[in-house]
Amino acid sequence: MPPRTLTVTLPPATANRNYPIHIGRGLFNQTALYRPHLISRQVLIVTNTTVAPLYLDAVRSALTDYQVNSVILPDGEQYKDLATWQQIFDVLLAQRYGRDCTLIALGGGVIGDMTGFAAASYQRGVAFIQVPTTLLAQVDSSVGGKTGINHPAGKNMIGAFHQPAAVIADTDTLMTLPERELSAGFAEVIKYGLIRDLDFFNWLAHHADGLLARDPALLATAIERSCQHKAEIVEADEYESGQRALLNLGHTFGHAIETGTGYGNWLHGEAIAVGMVMAADLSHRLGWLTNEDVDRVRQVLTAFQLPITAPLELTAGQMLDLMAVDKKVLQGKLRLVLLTALGAAQVTSDVPMEQLRMTLASASVSRGIAWLT
Amino acid sequence: MPPRTLTVTLPPATANRNYPIHIGRGLFNQTALYRPHLISRQVLIVTNTTVAPLYLDAVRSALTDYQVNSVILPDGEQYKDLATWQQIFDVLLAQRYGRDCTLIALGGGVIGDMTGFAAASYQRGVAFIQVPTTLLAQVDSSVGGKTGINHPAGKNMIGAFHQPAAVIADTDTLMTLPERELSAGFAEVIKYGLIRDLDFFNWLAHHADGLLARDPALLATAIERSCQHKAEIVEADEYESGQRALLNLGHTFGHAIETGTGYGNWLHGEAIAVGMVMAADLSHRLGWLTNEDVDRVRQVLTAFQLPITAPLELTAGQMLDLMAVDKKVLQGKLRLVLLTALGAAQVTSDVPMEQLRMTLASASVSRGIAWLT
Repeated sequence: MPPRTLTVTLPPATANRNYPIHIGRGLFNQTALYRPHLISRQVLIVTNTTVAPLYLDAVRSALTDYQVNSVILPDGEQYKDLATWQQIFDVLLAQRYGRDCTLIALGGGVIGDMTGFAAASYQRGVAFIQVPTTLLAQVDSSVGGKTGINHPAGKNMIGAFHQPAAVIADTDTLMTLPERELSAGFAEVIKYGLIRDLDFFNWLAHHADGLLARDPALLATAIERSCQHKAEIVEADEYESGQRALLNLGHTFGHAIETGTGYGNWLHGEAIAVGMVMAADLSHRLGWLTNEDVDRVRQVLTAFQLPITAPLELTAGQMLDLMAVDKKVLQGKLRLVLLTALGAAQVTSDVPMEQLRMTLASASVSRGIAWLT
Repeated sequence: MPPRTLTVTLPPATANRNYPIHIGRGLFNQTALYRPHLISRQVLIVTNTTVAPLYLDAVRSALTDYQVNSVILPDGEQYKDLATWQQIFDVLLAQRYGRDCTLIALGGGVIGDMTGFAAASYQRGVAFIQVPTTLLAQVDSSVGGKTGINHPAGKNMIGAFHQPAAVIADTDTLMTLPERELSAGFAEVIKYGLIRDLDFFNWLAHHADGLLARDPALLATAIERSCQHKAEIVEADEYESGQRALLNLGHTFGHAIETGTGYGNWLHGEAIAVGMVMAADLSHRLGWLTNEDVDRVRQVLTAFQLPITAPLELTAGQMLDLMAVDKKVLQGKLRLVLLTALGAAQVTSDVPMEQLRMTLASASVSRGIAWLT
């Protein structure tokens, strides 16, 4: 398949802010994809210990005309913290990078979020390019400008909205992605189906085996359709004052799982999968979904090798405590994204505590966490 | 004098971004000045160990209807760092503050910059109110939305543009301000005169004694005129793509002095005073100012008890090294704000290195640093 390019269209501020999302095989070393977005010759590649040996040289080979430095951070959600983030500035300043430099985030969601927030903050804002190497980053986190780091008490609590200058998604990286990471990425793909595209949800259910087998054509379709959804939502509501919140289906639950079990033990997509089951279960308890709908959500997630039950070590009370620090809390009220049907979602701050407790209690029993071991 | 209110008018983004600057005596405990800008009941006051015993209770007394917590940081430029900054988030999360909370910066420029950057970053952006308690903060840093923290290698290198919801400048605080801090604040006041208002510069020169004696009417005039200049420039160029850079007269030199001598040893305004002398001297070497102009700059700064010679411990070579990491460097070229006349400034990237070296060398000889001891 030839590469495809989508465009995220945003209102201009001090400059044009539209940006391309390039999706395809063998894109890493295509200088022409980077060049239009590099302002000066100063380029810093931020990556991690897992990705660097695989792809750093390929990206560097596209940038031989530039002054390229790199920072190789430790790999994992547990390093998405202030101390690790500071290492990016140490290099930028040691190399005397100016306001016209460009950062390149080469890695998954953690690298993208940290690099984006460093770009947002260095000298009060420099440009950056997302080069996502995981399915999750290619379909979700690299697009839309949400950047940030974790606080011990809450996921992504420190950050900024800062749009990338371009997204370069080389799908060849998915061939080396560990199975667990591939499945985790599909949680966010399935999410688009659940909140706004029932056809896509059914298509994913039908092609689960082929997608997990990494059929390139199927993967390209899944990524492109996901990015289309993400771009449409971000274009309509960049700063999440409305419908962008729907992208957080399962995330209030999921963030509590990630924080409560210790960053890095659950992958983000795994926690989101369980969170989506909880959201579906709660939607059923409110009479918005049928029991069959909820089962269907469980079945499709399971087909993608994703967990559907909460970690045994977290009680419902602990989950509630952790959920109370979520970014969607307003006026002290928890706001949750729930499903009004498969393919349609809504934000509500009107969830009876009793129903929520029952959802949490029922999700944490039974099957255990055998899938984690 | 009755309180006066200026307005900073900015283009709306997701919401109206215009904000008032209230200037006057006894404003701290006026609930009506805060209330319109508080979205939820959650308010966090960020202050420091020097200001808290003096004014924290007064501000709290205006907010009895709110859930008010406070963070008391150590006082000084040397604490404007990531580790101290993180303490703000620790409290925000421990108290489960939501996206609709408001931060209040009660202190000088360091507190304002750190609090503003925390507000820019907490949950990707919450509101904050500037309550400046130093002259420098009242005339300059509390207005305009520049926020940030220092990196060991460079001043204000990590930060964001994030406008306050209001500025409440209670001029009674100037009565308790140490003399050295008062003088430091006048460096930024004099700056407005030098870059765009010769009448104001001459007025300041004429009233130096009365201003240092803290005559309330003179102080109010100086603060209001300074804030008018700042507001006009920020309105015209919020993100410093043009004329806002003129506000950095003396700052490339000054930041190098602050970083090179160790944060907290020189006050920001003191370093800027010397930086303005250097800028004037260099302007003279380029034929833009007369020798008499440069002497006049030195005289007025001296009248305000400000230093006019560089620290002995920094060589011209060290200064040049430190200046190379300044935010105004673009395409590897140093950009400096110079004076084309008293009352008129210009940014130039065309400074001959030889002249710059002579300016640095001549500024660091002779008078010593007796004024520091």
